[in-house]
Order: sequence, then structure tokens, then C-alpha cells
Amino acid sequence: MAKRIGRDTLLTEHKPRILHTAAVVGQKEGGGPLGAYFDMVYHDTLLGQDSWEKAESTLQTEAVKKALKKAELPPEEVQYIFAGDLLNQCTGAVFGLRSLEIPFLGQYGACSTMAQTLAMASLFVDSGLAERAVAVTSSHFCSAERQFRFPLEYGSLRAPTSQWTVTGAGAAVVGHGYSGPYVAAVTAGRITDLGITDSNNMGAAMAPAAAATLTSYFNDTGTHPDQYDLIVTGDLGSVGSTLLYDLMDREGYDIREAHTDCGLLIFDRLRQKVNAGGSGCGCSASVLCGYLMHCLRKGELNDILFMATGALMSTTSSQQGESIPGVAHLVRICNG
Amino acid sequence: MAKRIGRDTLLTEHKPRILHTAAVVGQKEGGGPLGAYFDMVYHDTLLGQDSWEKAESTLQTEAVKKALKKAELPPEEVQYIFAGDLLNQCTGAVFGLRSLEIPFLGQYGACSTMAQTLAMASLFVDSGLAERAVAVTSSHFCSAERQFRFPLEYGSLRAPTSQWTVTGAGAAVVGHGYSGPYVAAVTAGRITDLGITDSNNMGAAMAPAAAATLTSYFNDTGTHPDQYDLIVTGDLGSVGSTLLYDLMDREGYDIREAHTDCGLLIFDRLRQKVNAGGSGCGCSASVLCGYLMHCLRKGELNDILFMATGALMSTTSSQQGESIPGVAHLVRICNG
Repeated sequence: MAKRIGRDTLLTEHKPRILHTAAVVGQKEGGGPLGAYFDMVYHDTLLGQDSWEKAESTLQTEAVKKALKKAELPPEEVQYIFAGDLLNQCTGAVFGLRSLEIPFLGQYGACSTMAQTLAMASLFVDSGLAERAVAVTSSHFCSAERQFRFPLEYGSLRAPTSQWTVTGAGAAVVGHGYSGPYVAAVTAGRITDLGITDSNNMGAAMAPAAAATLTSYFNDTGTHPDQYDLIVTGDLGSVGSTLLYDLMDREGYDIREAHTDCGLLIFDRLRQKVNAGGSGCGCSASVLCGYLMHCLRKGELNDILFMATGALMSTTSSQQGESIPGVAHLVRICNG
Repeated sequence: MAKRIGRDTLLTEHKPRILHTAAVVGQKEGGGPLGAYFDMVYHDTLLGQDSWEKAESTLQTEAVKKALKKAELPPEEVQYIFAGDLLNQCTGAVFGLRSLEIPFLGQYGACSTMAQTLAMASLFVDSGLAERAVAVTSSHFCSAERQFRFPLEYGSLRAPTSQWTVTGAGAAVVGHGYSGPYVAAVTAGRITDLGITDSNNMGAAMAPAAAATLTSYFNDTGTHPDQYDLIVTGDLGSVGSTLLYDLMDREGYDIREAHTDCGLLIFDRLRQKVNAGGSGCGCSASVLCGYLMHCLRKGELNDILFMATGALMSTTSSQQGESIPGVAHLVRICNG
């Protein structure tokens, strides 16, 4: 049975393993620094579909199929799929996963979804609720832009604090195994809202949630940032990362030496002109399931804190003057 | 440890109890046949807020606060809240639950959300992942109409197969206890799509998912419909319920004598002019957390199958010509 320590942290008992992962991305992501670590780079923005939303669904389909293929598992040997995304009513997941016929438990955590789905899959396997479970999420630059911002055809100028939604998906198959990376701990986050209202500055909106969850984890476990090979946030970008350092300083934890952010890893910010970095559910999903899992399997990383953050707003809530609450979920991944 | 039987069904081990519930509704629901079973009836459609979306969030806040008050629990003694709704990006849950500061695991199952959140809360408590967890969801007629259909001001005619979105929320506190209703089994559903495209006929879109999950449950457990006091679906309404009977006949299960539907219970269809019945996440949530839990606690019902169904579409997917996939999750609730 998983063991609760401190207020918010669960330690797993049976080392639920991340058996296999797959990451698929678009052309811009494939042309970035991590291009070599993705399983597939699609040069057609539409992935052969007739809408960007269907293209996003296809990203989820392909990521799951590739991860299952690596695991040599047919879909019927998976008991649950935990999935979500940021499209209205999570249609990226629904239409992308419909054909797989795996029992579907939709998750909503905005850009924290990869951490949330991986946490759920791992806790289900660790508790014996499933032999195997899949975690998956996605985002697509074009479907996100038109849903949350402006039609692409407007050619809107982008604020310096804005981030670039990643076109990509990541999927992880969790189950039992004798070696390889496993989920050692999970800290679920609270909804945190310091009153940020600028929807062109998601990093600032999400940093307080990241600081709250990371502080809970350190307090619960009695550990410090320098005990980990890497503390990697989902998509705080450059602005949010700097804010996170300041917020963590106030809690007595200097994370600068140990921290990086998936939104800063996936793009070369200056060359690729993405302003404050990458974002979207697919950002942390593709970086985790591609690059980070590669480093874990190689033994170049052996103990990381993966913490994805979500901005919990809608266009309606922003139009009605609401601030942007954030949430961050943390998953500790170890080798051994 | 929960035990898996058959393909899809989990039997709990430690009788996770539904310790307390609360249901809050709007005026029309309060004036229906179940009016006496709700904890609060709001006669102001806006609940004192300045938008219908904020009113829906308030329904979730109030349902959870009332359930926690009955349980005499402060929010900090709850380890997780499983919550969701049908507003874009689940803002009903996010803004409604922000002030409670309980670790938030957002769930997306459309109108199956009450069954999904209750299943998750129960499995977490049963597995020792939480001492206590809350499940909650909501819907609001006015926020749903303008998001999914037409501005109310248009006064659109409603199709005979259409259903009326319930204004209401239900919340359940799950934990350990010595007596009272508990969750005995959970069957999670697959995404099921028979190609229905009429978004004014959600019952027809969801019936195949209901039939698939109910058949799985009966097959997994080797039980029959007449062994249960009640088989209650979420919001199939009159059209979907009739379709469910036909689909279950083909599987060899006649459920007519044992079945009712929350969408048929909550309104007097003819007097209240709701066409095919009630719908929305708040329909099954308020009927379960108000009326059905009352009957369970009184011992008038002792063994029920509660199965909420969701239509997994968005306005964008429908505009792009997609059919409407459904999903249904089943929870067996027993006394003892």
C-alpha cells in the first residue's frame, strides 16, 4: 500500500514502472534541440486530417499506439487509460482514443495533465487497481491558438511573456517490471491563485502553484533540491521559472542549480522565436516521454522530480474578469 | 486490495463509505417531484453572482461545503477532491473549489462525471491512498445552453428528443465508517460510438455506452438485473432509456423492471415541459446525493447500480461533422 508522508505526498510501495513511452511532435519541435529524441516528427501540420483538432487527436492516437507497440501490448491488456487535453470537452483525448477501446478515465489538469495522468496510472498500478495503465496528453499549436487566442490568419503580434504551444503528444505505459524508471512518489497540488489576470503570461500565473507543490514535497519528505538530479517543471518558460526561483527562495529552497523547464528545453528560444518558451499539455508530455525518459533509461538521470503545471482558466472566465488559478502535480521518477 | 473480477470490474475490499452527501438545485428542480430531498433550492438563477458560469461554480462550492459540514470535517482533513463539469476547461469545478484548498484532481467524463468522481474517491479510500476524498460535479441550465446550443434570448424551439439541463450540484464525502452506504464495485466504461450525430438527442448517443458498461458488469459478476433494488442511469431520458432496453435485450438482460433514470426522476416531464427529461452532470449528481442517498440511508434501497453516462462531444467536434461518442461508468452502492 502506498504510504502517505507529511501532508500531501504518497510514496509508492511496489515501484510502478514506466515500461515504455512514446513522443510524437510537429515540425517546429522536431527542428528544436530535442528533435532526435522524439519517435516521430510530423511535417504536415494537419497530420493528413481535415482539421487541427482532428490532427491533435491523431497525435494522441499515434503516441499511444507507438508506446503500446514498444511494450508489445495489445490495447485489451491495458485496464485503464488516463487522458486529457486542453481542447473544449477534452476532445483531443476522446476522439484520439475512441478506437482503442480501453476503459477511459478522462483527466483535466490543463498543462499539468501529463503529471496528473502519470500519477493516476502509477497509483492505480501500485495499488493493484490495474496491471497496466496508460497516461497520455497532447496539444497542438493551431487548435490552441484558435480556441484560446486569435484565428491564426490575423497574424497577431505576440507579447514577450507569451509562450508557444507545442504541437505534440506523449504517452506512457505503466505496469510491473524488474528494472527501469519507476514512479517513487506523487504530490498532488491545490488550486493556487495569486490574482494574475494576464492571459499572455501563463508562466506567472502557474509559478505560485509550482512553488506550493514543490514546497509541500520538500517539507513532506525532508529532502532538499540538491538531492535530485533534476527538478523539471512543465511549461513555466523563462518568466515563470524566474518567478519560481524567487518564490522558492522565500520558502528557504534555492532550486536554481537543479531546475530546468520543459518549455525551455524543447525550443531554442532565440533561434526559433518562441518568446518565453514552449507551453501546452504536449510540451511536458513530449519532453518527458521523449528526452527525459531517454536520459533515465541511459542512467544519465537517476532521480528526478517531474512537475507539470496547469493554468486553470477558460476564455469565458477571462472575459468575465476572473484571475487565472494554477495547479501543479509532482511525480518523482527514479531508476532502480 | 480491490479485486478485479472478469474483464472490467473492481470489487472494493474495505467498504469505502459514502459518509455524507449534499445536493443543491435551482428553482425548477426544487419544484419537481424530488424537491423535498435537496439540501437547498436557489430561487435566484444567478445565485447572487454576476454570470451563470459563476453561479454554476457556486453550486459546487455550496454542495461541497454542505457535505463537509454534515460530516463535521474541515477541508484540510480531506486529501483529494475529484471534480469536473461540462463548462469549457472545467471552470465550474476550478472556480467553485479554489477557496477550499483541497488537492485537486480534475476529472472529465461529461455527464458521467458523478459516477467517475465517486468511483475515484472510493477507490482511493479503499486502496489507502486517502483517508477521505470528496466527489462533486454540477451543471447549470443557462451556462450549458449558451455554451452548447443557443443564447437563451433567441427562445429557440426544443426538439421532442431534447433534454433539459439540470441546474444543480451534488457532492459526496467518502471515507471509513462502521455502517451506511458504501461503494461495493466499480466498472469503468469504454468510449462507445455508434455514429449518432444529432446533438438534440443525447440519450440516443449515450445509450450504447450504457449498454456496454452494464453488460460488462453483469458478465463480470455473473449477476442479473433482478438481483438489484434499482439500476439507475444518469440522464438517458425517455428516448435513451427505451434504446437501452432494446440494446440490453440483445445481450440477454431485461432491465425494464429494475431500471429508472435520474433524468426521468428529477422532473415531471409533462407538467414541467422538459421533453425527454433532465440532463447535465448535475442531474445524476443531485439525484444521487439527494434522493437516492436518502432512500439508501433509510433502508428503502439497499443495493443499487448507479451508472452515469456522458456524451463526449464539443460544439467544435459537432461542427466538424464528428459523431457523438459516449461513455458510462458504473458504481454499485450497498448498505451493510
